[in-house]
Amino acid sequence: MDKDDYVRRLRRIEGQVRGLERMVEEDTYCIDVLTQVSAVTKALQSVAIGLLDQHVRHCVANAEGDSGDEMVTEAVKAVERLLRS
Amino acid sequence: MDKDDYVRRLRRIEGQVRGLERMVEEDTYCIDVLTQVSAVTKALQSVAIGLLDQHVRHCVANAEGDSGDEMVTEAVKAVERLLRS
Amino acid sequence: MDKDDYVRRLRRIEGQVRGLERMVEEDTYCIDVLTQVSAVTKALQSVAIGLLDQHVRHCVANAEGDSGDEMVTEAVKAVERLLRS
Amino acid sequence: MDKDDYVRRLRRIEGQVRGLERMVEEDTYCIDVLTQVSAVTKALQSVAIGLLDQHVRHCVANAEGDSGDEMVTEAVKAVERLLRS
Repeated sequence: MDKDDYVRRLRRIEGQVRGLERMVEEDTYCIDVLTQVSAVTKALQSVAIGLLDQHVRHCVANAEGDSGDEMVTEAVKAVERLLRS
Repeated sequence: MDKDDYVRRLRRIEGQVRGLERMVEEDTYCIDVLTQVSAVTKALQSVAIGLLDQHVRHCVANAEGDSGDEMVTEAVKAVERLLRS
Repeated sequence: MDKDDYVRRLRRIEGQVRGLERMVEEDTYCIDVLTQVSAVTKALQSVAIGLLDQHVRHCVANAEGDSGDEMVTEAVKAVERLLRS
Repeated sequence: MDKDDYVRRLRRIEGQVRGLERMVEEDTYCIDVLTQVSAVTKALQSVAIGLLDQHVRHCVANAEGDSGDEMVTEAVKAVERLLRS
C-alpha cells in the first residue's frame, strides 16, 4: 500500500459520506442509512489499520532507545483511541 | 435534530475525510492521521446514534404487533453491525 | 433466550476469563492472549445484544407516552456506552 | 505492569462477570445490566491494551529482519481483531 492507494481509498470514503448526505436528504429508510454508516466506519478503520501497520513497520521498529519507547507509547495510545471511537 | 442538522453534520464529516486525504498526501505524521480517523469515526457513530434514536422513537415505538416485532429485530441487528464495525 | 440461557452464557464467559488468568500466569504468547480477549469481548457483546433485544421488545415497545420516550432515551444511551466501550 | 497485576485485574473482571450472572438471575433492570457489560468490556480492552504495549515494547521492537516483519503483521492483526470485537 502506498500513499496513492490510501488517498484513493479515502476519496472513496468521501464519496460514501456524500452518499449518506443524499440518503438523509431523500429520507431513505433509517436502517439502510445505519447499514451504510457501518460500512463507512469499517472502511475508515481499515485505512487506520493499514496506516498503523506501516507506521509500526517503518517508524517504531527502526527507532532506538528512548525514542523507540516513546513511539511505542504513542502508537499504543493511538490504538486505544481507535478502540474507544 | 432534524434532517438539515444531519445533512450538515455529514457535510462536516465529508470535509474531515477530505482533510484526511490532504494529510496523507502531505505525509502528515501517521499518528496525527490516526487521531483524526478516530475523530471522524466518533462523529459518524454519533450521527448513527442520533438516527437510531429517532428511528426507535418514531417508527419502532409506534409499530404494532408482528410489524413492531420485525422492526425491533431489524433495529437490534443494525446496532450489532455498528458494534462490529 | 430465557434467563437461564443468559446465566449459562455468562458462566461460560466467566470460565473464559479464568482461562485468561491462567494464560497470563503461564506466560502464554501475548498474541494468543489478545485473541482470546477478543473472543471474550465478542461473547459479552453478544449477550448485551440479546438483552437489548428483549428489553426493547418487551419494555420499550410496550411503554406509553412520556415513559416510552424516556425508555427510548435510556436504551439509546446504553447502546452508546456499548459502542464507546 | 507485571504479570501479577494482570492476573489481579483479570480476577476482578472474573468477579464482575459473576456479578453479571447474579444481576440476570435476580432480574436486575436490563439497562443496568447493559451498563455493567460496558464496564466489563472496557476493563477487558484495557487489559488488552496493556498486554499489547508490553508485547510491542519487548518483543516486536527487539525482533529483527523477517521475524520482526512477521511480528508486526501479527500484532496489527491482533489489533484488528480487537477493533472488530
